[in-house]
Amino acid sequence: MPAVSQRGKTAYASPIRKLEDAAQAAVERGTRIYHLNIGQPDIPTPPEALAAMRRLDLEVLAYGPARGLTSYRKRLTDYYGRHRIALDYTDIIVTTGASEAIYLTLLSVCDPGDEVIVPEPFYALYNGFAQTTGIRIVPVPTYLEDGFALPDTPAFAERITPRTRAILLCNPNNPTGCLYPEAKLRALGALVRTHDLFLLCDEVYREFNYSDAPFFSILQLPDLHAHAIVLDSISKRYSSCGARVGAVVCRNAAVLDNLVKFARFRLCPPGLGQLLAEATLDAGPAYLDAAVAEYRRRRDVLIDRLSRISGVKCYVPEGAFYAFAALPIADAEAFCAWLLTDFSDNGETVMLAPGAGFYATPGRGINEVRIAYVLNTRDLERAMEILEVALRQYQELYSRATALTAAAPDDEALQARKE
Amino acid sequence: MPAVSQRGKTAYASPIRKLEDAAQAAVERGTRIYHLNIGQPDIPTPPEALAAMRRLDLEVLAYGPARGLTSYRKRLTDYYGRHRIALDYTDIIVTTGASEAIYLTLLSVCDPGDEVIVPEPFYALYNGFAQTTGIRIVPVPTYLEDGFALPDTPAFAERITPRTRAILLCNPNNPTGCLYPEAKLRALGALVRTHDLFLLCDEVYREFNYSDAPFFSILQLPDLHAHAIVLDSISKRYSSCGARVGAVVCRNAAVLDNLVKFARFRLCPPGLGQLLAEATLDAGPAYLDAAVAEYRRRRDVLIDRLSRISGVKCYVPEGAFYAFAALPIADAEAFCAWLLTDFSDNGETVMLAPGAGFYATPGRGINEVRIAYVLNTRDLERAMEILEVALRQYQELYSRATALTAAAPDDEALQARKE
Repeated sequence: MPAVSQRGKTAYASPIRKLEDAAQAAVERGTRIYHLNIGQPDIPTPPEALAAMRRLDLEVLAYGPARGLTSYRKRLTDYYGRHRIALDYTDIIVTTGASEAIYLTLLSVCDPGDEVIVPEPFYALYNGFAQTTGIRIVPVPTYLEDGFALPDTPAFAERITPRTRAILLCNPNNPTGCLYPEAKLRALGALVRTHDLFLLCDEVYREFNYSDAPFFSILQLPDLHAHAIVLDSISKRYSSCGARVGAVVCRNAAVLDNLVKFARFRLCPPGLGQLLAEATLDAGPAYLDAAVAEYRRRRDVLIDRLSRISGVKCYVPEGAFYAFAALPIADAEAFCAWLLTDFSDNGETVMLAPGAGFYATPGRGINEVRIAYVLNTRDLERAMEILEVALRQYQELYSRATALTAAAPDDEALQARKE
Repeated sequence: MPAVSQRGKTAYASPIRKLEDAAQAAVERGTRIYHLNIGQPDIPTPPEALAAMRRLDLEVLAYGPARGLTSYRKRLTDYYGRHRIALDYTDIIVTTGASEAIYLTLLSVCDPGDEVIVPEPFYALYNGFAQTTGIRIVPVPTYLEDGFALPDTPAFAERITPRTRAILLCNPNNPTGCLYPEAKLRALGALVRTHDLFLLCDEVYREFNYSDAPFFSILQLPDLHAHAIVLDSISKRYSSCGARVGAVVCRNAAVLDNLVKFARFRLCPPGLGQLLAEATLDAGPAYLDAAVAEYRRRRDVLIDRLSRISGVKCYVPEGAFYAFAALPIADAEAFCAWLLTDFSDNGETVMLAPGAGFYATPGRGINEVRIAYVLNTRDLERAMEILEVALRQYQELYSRATALTAAAPDDEALQARKE
């Protein structure tokens, strides 16, 4: 029997997906699962986009350009223009989802052994791309107690070494929902210029901003054209996760040259997905306005209900569609598994993403979970009711001592936040 | 200015694509180009597949499973069954084209520094995936003089080292069109069993077989279930290159476990492409029969015309839609560029892929080109007429001496083959 690769055996396994077998078994027992574990929106894909597929008029579904369809890239400049980001279409390379955008960017700006500084918790699959590109993620801690706010510049500066090539942000943040303010981004911009680093920002949740301030993109920093690289995707904003269409946006010619070489290995991004993506831009502002209003309502319902569950600690996320919460339990991964294997309330349960997988630092996040508010408000209300019942049962089962230990720190700070 | 990665600067650049700027300039001068440089079929995509897009009935284009849509995987087992390959659908992982199939497979069976033995010339982009996965390609020479026949087992055996993990074939072969016979594949199967290696086979041209013998897949070797891994794609057989839908087929659970971990990094393969791919299977055998008959006619026209051009050496390819030919010139890359920059015949020219880029061994293939017969027979005839005129002009320009040197070896062997 030939041996498989060691890197495969030790490959990163997603905390979001690894409960899938237990979930499947629960479904087979007849349990209904409220899925709060994955960022799969239930908002309809724009009808204009689906209609474009139904009008499909071509004879041969041929390879497209490695950089993506020119017509789509040109229309994307209008989209960014509405966000006060002036681009030439040649600044945009279309990718197979944001996943490929991250992968190609890391290949293009880092060599194996190089370091990228990332606030933690972070989107768990960055670990996967760190492995396949051979780079090292250097985490900067952020904390639930202050809503996972972007740390001040010195926290990044003190982690810069001769191997540091970039700082990687996700704004609005997955998994925390934190929205990063312009002033802090400007300060980070100054830092990367001083140290000749790249500033990478995953802005796929750009539209989902529930604050009063407009979203601020790193591409709006006029003196950062050589340094700023944005990773983007239509998956979330147009509820088109299955299209697998993303983009890298960058005004540095040397980066674009590298990117296109690696992009050519896979010939071109998905053709049908790109046609759909182009048609999403016909949807008009009302589509996004309605989606954002709906997510804001959900956010409000979720946070209101969560804050009334005894021992749960949360904050008010201002962007994306995630909240990170600390539960009054010792081990969120065990609890999330138990929700699927041993618990149900009237034949229903909830699925959450255990928090530890979003951290690089061992021991952090073990009593935390990520909650994606991708269900309608009625289902969210019910899911929170189930979570409350489950936590009570679990605490009774696994002794009051465990629950009290986990819930102890900073309870007063949390109470202050709730009021 | 931050520095980009060294691996980007030295990344593999495709010989097929690097003449693109010259081609673009030729088009802008009003020159018509006959594209024989890239395997983009002109055969229509099955109408059944395009019709499925026009019937698209979904509200949310959601993420699918990382392994691909179960319905599509199940229907693929029927497709393979018709090729006498018995599979369970769980043996199939759907990928984003064959490009991703190769990439994920190399990650799953090789660690950085491991070696994979590959007959050369080979599909040029294997070089790209060798770079991004950190493996080393060890070439086994094959020769135009015997139609690039698969070497006998000792040629592979003598290249096995402690770092060898796999032998990688492409059958029918891109770029040579050579079809590998069952007996030689059985012998290689015995070799990989003895040495506990994997046998990877890119079989995307499986349907394009112009010989009298049925195509033989490595998946038909009953004692090779732990070792055989097939890389596949719908791009060529259903003229659906833009769908970006491929597959890895393998019956080794440890390999599948590794594959799915890496597959999860990119969440899922393209959703619309998979729906189209599933509908290609409605096309029925008449579609493929007609396509194969058409390619066979083109092959016959191409080889007939090529063999009548003075000094050109070719052979009769039995599969895929490529021929590799030696031209009576010293440097095919310079000639291919000249065709685009300095030549036209009645406002028309041809674009070919220079041969050297398909070899790993320096100095091999420098007077060779790959010709993709993806144009109708009338256009192919005209393209060969243009090539003949161009070669005559080029030889006159660049001295008879150069031409004679390149055309000298083995001219008698070629004549024998032609007769």
